Amino acid sequence: MSQSQGRGIPDLAVPRLSHYYRALLESRETDVISSEELSRLTGYSAAQIRRDLASFGQFGTPGRGYSVLDLRTALLSILGIDKDWHVALVGAGNLGQALLGYKGFRDQRFKVLYAFDNDPQKIGREFQGVKVYPLSELSQRIAQNNIRMAILTVPVAAAQEVVNQLVSSGVSAILNFVPVRLKVPEQITVQNIDMAIELERLSYRTTRSPGSTKQDTTKQQ
Amino acid sequence: MSQSQGRGIPDLAVPRLSHYYRALLESRETDVISSEELSRLTGYSAAQIRRDLASFGQFGTPGRGYSVLDLRTALLSILGIDKDWHVALVGAGNLGQALLGYKGFRDQRFKVLYAFDNDPQKIGREFQGVKVYPLSELSQRIAQNNIRMAILTVPVAAAQEVVNQLVSSGVSAILNFVPVRLKVPEQITVQNIDMAIELERLSYRTTRSPGSTKQDTTKQQ
Repeated sequence: MSQSQGRGIPDLAVPRLSHYYRALLESRETDVISSEELSRLTGYSAAQIRRDLASFGQFGTPGRGYSVLDLRTALLSILGIDKDWHVALVGAGNLGQALLGYKGFRDQRFKVLYAFDNDPQKIGREFQGVKVYPLSELSQRIAQNNIRMAILTVPVAAAQEVVNQLVSSGVSAILNFVPVRLKVPEQITVQNIDMAIELERLSYRTTRSPGSTKQDTTKQQ
Repeated sequence: MSQSQGRGIPDLAVPRLSHYYRALLESRETDVISSEELSRLTGYSAAQIRRDLASFGQFGTPGRGYSVLDLRTALLSILGIDKDWHVALVGAGNLGQALLGYKGFRDQRFKVLYAFDNDPQKIGREFQGVKVYPLSELSQRIAQNNIRMAILTVPVAAAQEVVNQLVSSGVSAILNFVPVRLKVPEQITVQNIDMAIELERLSYRTTRSPGSTKQDTTKQQ
């Protein structure tokens, strides 16, 4: 395997790598996999797959296919999930509780160590094995446990203040579910999930183009 | 205003339109807005904004700026949110309940008429003013109320069966939160929100490129 740092791929294409990785997990029985087979498993074109993977190095013998093991190892490393991430969740309301139980998270290397909330009804309780602590303990617990990633599910009005606290405690990556623009320093990574905007994307596609692409690009089918 | 059907824009760029629209809502006081001002409000480059909007028609006088009213009206129509969408939510667990209360939805034209679940503890209850009905009533209520859009928040094992029922009842657009590949007919639009994949995107960016782009592309800042 000759995994290089690679030229990388556009940020929006990263979910494709996640789908390739999932497809490889389903291919435990084989040593070698072709781009055509990966195409069948993920729904992306074989040409797209070859282009994406070529940008990170060479994972097989041309004409024979990719080494499943090498490719899996490389994707783990490229995606940054070859190690556990310690995660804090801030805001243990319905959405926060739902995320704590989300199957997709529990299967991955993202380990939520703590939840934080300022509601006395929630502090001290456990959801899916994760205990809720008061916001006043956020900075200390994050710093002590080397937590670099946070999931933000607080009310709109509280979001920016919590983010400031997260950043000053050492968090560098934030998955933000709050429909608000967060102000963060340059070196902090924010991934916004704005569900209203996802619904608008759906209504755009449904309204405008009855004949054209119907699946989102992170999709297979 | 000369809004044409336009050449449209790539699907992944649609969230930019949503952000432009939100910025225009904040600009009630002005008649005309420049691409530079829109850039300041949204974080996208002025060149990007001009390119996106030009693909849908002409909304102003070159050199003077865009007509806020025309552009707002056009974006509403392009995004398909110039009318109400009747929506059904299937799966009234934590995530479903969280979505029913999600501020971003309530502000928009997406009206959740019914929630469905098969849990006797939930059937008959109301969350955020939306009543939960048994799954056995799904087909009838969807057909009778002209519901075309559904939000799917059921357990993995139930997802495909529910989707089949939604599709055969007339739903054509599905916002899917279940981390599973749905099989749907060609003409059905599915938007997947896979939160584990969003976390992987975050870990990819945090791991690989400390110096490069840190904000996702649907982001401003």
